[in-house]
Amino acid sequence: MIITRRLHVQTKGNTDIVDVTAGVGAVAEESGIRQGLVVVFVAGSTAAIMTLEYEPGLIADLREALERLAPRSIPYRHHLTWGDDNGHSHVRASLLGPSLAVPLVDGSLTLGTWQQIALVDLDTRHRTREIIVQIVGE
Amino acid sequence: MIITRRLHVQTKGNTDIVDVTAGVGAVAEESGIRQGLVVVFVAGSTAAIMTLEYEPGLIADLREALERLAPRSIPYRHHLTWGDDNGHSHVRASLLGPSLAVPLVDGSLTLGTWQQIALVDLDTRHRTREIIVQIVGE
Amino acid sequence: MIITRRLHVQTKGNTDIVDVTAGVGAVAEESGIRQGLVVVFVAGSTAAIMTLEYEPGLIADLREALERLAPRSIPYRHHLTWGDDNGHSHVRASLLGPSLAVPLVDGSLTLGTWQQIALVDLDTRHRTREIIVQIVGE
Repeated sequence: MIITRRLHVQTKGNTDIVDVTAGVGAVAEESGIRQGLVVVFVAGSTAAIMTLEYEPGLIADLREALERLAPRSIPYRHHLTWGDDNGHSHVRASLLGPSLAVPLVDGSLTLGTWQQIALVDLDTRHRTREIIVQIVGE
Repeated sequence: MIITRRLHVQTKGNTDIVDVTAGVGAVAEESGIRQGLVVVFVAGSTAAIMTLEYEPGLIADLREALERLAPRSIPYRHHLTWGDDNGHSHVRASLLGPSLAVPLVDGSLTLGTWQQIALVDLDTRHRTREIIVQIVGE
Repeated sequence: MIITRRLHVQTKGNTDIVDVTAGVGAVAEESGIRQGLVVVFVAGSTAAIMTLEYEPGLIADLREALERLAPRSIPYRHHLTWGDDNGHSHVRASLLGPSLAVPLVDGSLTLGTWQQIALVDLDTRHRTREIIVQIVGE
């Protein structure tokens, strides 16, 4: 049995980290699937899916780590291609990745107590992002 | 056909990298599934799943790379939230990710000869970690 | 229904980033599967799968980011193990990861318009790489 649902999420951009755990959990619950695999995927090359303990201190720490990894202020050749200002957004998104697979067991996501699923919007402006939640199970 | 099994792994913490390939392979073998997808997932926000050539030199190199990526000694705002000392653990775990999908073909994991699956415990103390191995196949 | 196909890709090594989207899409189309999960996996511990906007400026930016993450010129203990010169290749590959899961909806990969799937060969020489494309669906 395969279920696919789309979630739409408003973001503020600039490494906005948005908790989408409840939305993903609701898709799982409504699906009626008890055992299976939940894949969370974001379309686009300047966004990513990650897990984290979703609390403001750690969100700030992760934003600083991404700034070390791909600083906003250094030159990017991508800017020469399109006249864009989001080279760092693309690099961060490619390093984090757009996809997450979480087992579903007895109807529940097997996340830890302090582990949430987040959409990370790395682009330089606010966006409406589409997340695809697909469940393969029984 | 969907099979879910839990592996329990003792770790020493502090970026302990533990080879779990044999455990994952045993779940695949016992399942009787010949073709399908194997997902390896660790619950918790201070651990990760990765693949690597599991040899001591490279393990040391990876630990140094993670220390560059999220140094233990810099300040983390997460420490102010809970009085914790593991901000770097969370950041490293979120950047590496908790999940891995490996195809199973003719009953074998399609890993390279020098490619093992490892649990990485990034927390600052020893832990018993739970890994969920789920196989969707036939 | 489960379909597994192997793609063989010639690379130049040294963080060669090769667009494999068309090959993966062709496997999906030939499978006849309309709804399901597509997993793209590369065997080996010095290669990775990522998504990116595949354009030359960004490819250069990503190569520079990987050089910051695991510089080629610093010492690696892996070199002492085998007399190899590819410690940075292993570290980069382990941090990026060998696997990607993309939902297939109505017979199409749910990638963004500017989002391609790439094989990244991080080794220090040219290689023929094997990518495994597995689709679980209906």
